[in-house]
Amino acid sequence: MNESLQKYIEENKDNFVDELFSWLRIASISTLPEYREDVRAAALWAEDKLKKIGFPIVELIDGDGHPLVFAEYRAADDRPTILFYGHYDVQPVDPLAEWDKPPFEPYIANENVYARGACDDKGQVMVVLAAFEAWIRSEGKLPVNVKVLLEGEEEAGGAFVDSYVRSHGEKLQADVALICDTHMNGSDQPSIINGLRGILYTEILVRGARRDLHSGSYGGVAPNPLHALCLLLARLKGEDGRIDIPGIYVSPVEVSEEEKRFWEEDSAAMEERLRREMGVERLVGENHLPPQRRLGIRPTLEVHGIRGGFTGEGAKTVIPAEALAKVSMRLPAGMQPKRVFAQFERAVREKMPSGYMVEVRNLHSGEGISISPDNEYMRAAVAAIEHRYGTRPVFMREGGSIPIAALFDTILQIPVVLMGFGLPDDGAHGPNEKFSLSQFVKGILTVADYLGRIAEKP
Amino acid sequence: MNESLQKYIEENKDNFVDELFSWLRIASISTLPEYREDVRAAALWAEDKLKKIGFPIVELIDGDGHPLVFAEYRAADDRPTILFYGHYDVQPVDPLAEWDKPPFEPYIANENVYARGACDDKGQVMVVLAAFEAWIRSEGKLPVNVKVLLEGEEEAGGAFVDSYVRSHGEKLQADVALICDTHMNGSDQPSIINGLRGILYTEILVRGARRDLHSGSYGGVAPNPLHALCLLLARLKGEDGRIDIPGIYVSPVEVSEEEKRFWEEDSAAMEERLRREMGVERLVGENHLPPQRRLGIRPTLEVHGIRGGFTGEGAKTVIPAEALAKVSMRLPAGMQPKRVFAQFERAVREKMPSGYMVEVRNLHSGEGISISPDNEYMRAAVAAIEHRYGTRPVFMREGGSIPIAALFDTILQIPVVLMGFGLPDDGAHGPNEKFSLSQFVKGILTVADYLGRIAEKP
Repeated sequence: MNESLQKYIEENKDNFVDELFSWLRIASISTLPEYREDVRAAALWAEDKLKKIGFPIVELIDGDGHPLVFAEYRAADDRPTILFYGHYDVQPVDPLAEWDKPPFEPYIANENVYARGACDDKGQVMVVLAAFEAWIRSEGKLPVNVKVLLEGEEEAGGAFVDSYVRSHGEKLQADVALICDTHMNGSDQPSIINGLRGILYTEILVRGARRDLHSGSYGGVAPNPLHALCLLLARLKGEDGRIDIPGIYVSPVEVSEEEKRFWEEDSAAMEERLRREMGVERLVGENHLPPQRRLGIRPTLEVHGIRGGFTGEGAKTVIPAEALAKVSMRLPAGMQPKRVFAQFERAVREKMPSGYMVEVRNLHSGEGISISPDNEYMRAAVAAIEHRYGTRPVFMREGGSIPIAALFDTILQIPVVLMGFGLPDDGAHGPNEKFSLSQFVKGILTVADYLGRIAEKP
Repeated sequence: MNESLQKYIEENKDNFVDELFSWLRIASISTLPEYREDVRAAALWAEDKLKKIGFPIVELIDGDGHPLVFAEYRAADDRPTILFYGHYDVQPVDPLAEWDKPPFEPYIANENVYARGACDDKGQVMVVLAAFEAWIRSEGKLPVNVKVLLEGEEEAGGAFVDSYVRSHGEKLQADVALICDTHMNGSDQPSIINGLRGILYTEILVRGARRDLHSGSYGGVAPNPLHALCLLLARLKGEDGRIDIPGIYVSPVEVSEEEKRFWEEDSAAMEERLRREMGVERLVGENHLPPQRRLGIRPTLEVHGIRGGFTGEGAKTVIPAEALAKVSMRLPAGMQPKRVFAQFERAVREKMPSGYMVEVRNLHSGEGISISPDNEYMRAAVAAIEHRYGTRPVFMREGGSIPIAALFDTILQIPVVLMGFGLPDDGAHGPNEKFSLSQFVKGILTVADYLGRIAEKP
């Protein structure tokens, strides 16, 4: 990595933090309508910043949802084109009482930046923008062609960016997509994401009697949709974590020998880390499998809530006429959510106790992705991280879903590089969200280095 | 039944209805603090009415809760004493939109009185008060010694009357207790209640991780208290309605051959009625047993609500740190709720999936009661009903709980007569509660007759 580039980054790191602070002060909560203007203000901030960096084309794209910010920089025709994706919206801040300081008043403590969005994703977007700036200021130009696509509703379903990508394939065409919205295994154990699970989010609505009933008058002969849901959910997944839906375990993801070896080696440490983070004595579920396998490439089924009947204080002996369960499945790459939904629905109907009407709804879904480490862009990412951290990064699969990654994979058909600098304890969706200052600066240096590396071998 | 008594009742039935209307206009909802003054007003109405009837002793008893109204009339030392219990409070009126007219503006339509409390229990208390009045006005005195105890928190747990009965055994001592707060099988098939189930109302709190988790990051290794509750509740009761708690089926209630015969004969009609009332194609649970048996003397287990996680609109992939289920059991007479709670708690701990902390709470409980038809007071009740309805009443057990009945049985140790004139479709806790005018008048005549019958054979 050339010296002037490194020098610029090191001399300007305080400025980068100051700029990030000004962005973090904008409460761009995309799911709450009352923050609509703040979300827009955060988009305008990004538009302005991209212009200041020196992008000749910067567009604020309005549509059905919060705006997209698009920017483009042409370096040279013989250089590869990188499409950088990030999001400027943030999660809600509830429960506010658990924050040590107001979530939109960023501050530094213990070498961390604290604020809502510090890591997810403003801080990580700033990492990449700072790398772009450093190249232009110190070298006069970017080493590769760059397209930037920032969205404002990643935390709210991302419908606009989804339709935009599907209808603007040519405009967004690139050689590689870079997403900086994930975390590393640890600051001393760098990692790079090579897989994301997909998701299928459903509702199961069960109807029994025509109206709510009193358990004194009808208990013993009445259908109870709440109990029927319990029977059903117990049949769909056992205590051993195994999902009993025919066909659900037939789409194995290809896992390299290197990855399997790491899973085995790291299994105990990973389990210990998960136990600590969750505050539990033991993991629950398929305990005969290494945790990485369970989080990365096994389908899961979770119930997120059961609605119906009486849940207030005290006692009410109602047998509700209907009850609803929110149930999601995480899907390893290669499983088509639509096909899984059909299998899921069939299993629900088969396992449903008799005497009830059941309706199954597909609320939303997104495909998983498995990223081959065997291309020049991933190899360059591995090299850039190894250079900066002094350790070869391990491959990690992330259990969460980044629908845009699957979209780039399937619609644009380009390799996706998920290079993230968050740490497992950053608390991206919780109170006191943070981003390590050291990871912030290392991230800028790594990304700047990465841009140079992919420029060299087009 | 003597003529002047019958004449008085028939000539004054419109007055009785008018008086009932004035009581029904008072919105005595005991569970809602904003109606406290209305509840008191309804008590004062009863106090006033008892004085006007001619009770020499009438007391408004204040204490920890809504007031009790006590009254006493001494007829003669050689006459038996009857303790009449009723309640002047009513259920809340939600959902208000489902009422055809305002719930506290009584009116007559289709030969029914419509209003909240029309049947439960102001209307049925008025039946007995009118019978008292008829005796005093037409015969100059009551034929038996009478004590009256009216409470104002039957719909709110009845804590005050419970402690009052326990501490005032001597004051309330009587030969028989009369409760007029139940319904008949139908206007053409009179019935009398010979059993009530007890109740045990519990909460099961399950804890998993220290904090709420995101299913993307932890789904596959995390404890999910909602799913654990589903597994648990499915283990506690199967689809066949059988409760899997050791020791729960060992307390059989004695059932007469006559009652068993009626259950068999009436089984199809009862099932048809229940299906119609619930709006279902089939009953759910122990379908190999006649419905009366299942509603009357089998223990039941129902889940009334499951709290935890996300139940709003849309999708949130939270795995909650804790979840809570509200679970009640109906208990046949003879089962001690305390003992059942111990069995229940043990079963919960044994069946709980591993990896969770569980806490079981006993919110409240009440014993059931089985009433022998083999005493003079029940025989007189049967005779009075048969005389008025022209048909011998069948014995019915009611699935709901009337804790005061068990209290009279165990504390005062006197026979309890549950003579009710409601009909199954009166909708006592729902919108458009009604009381049949014909049942109202027949009820007054039946109770007046009953008082004469028990006076004759002390």
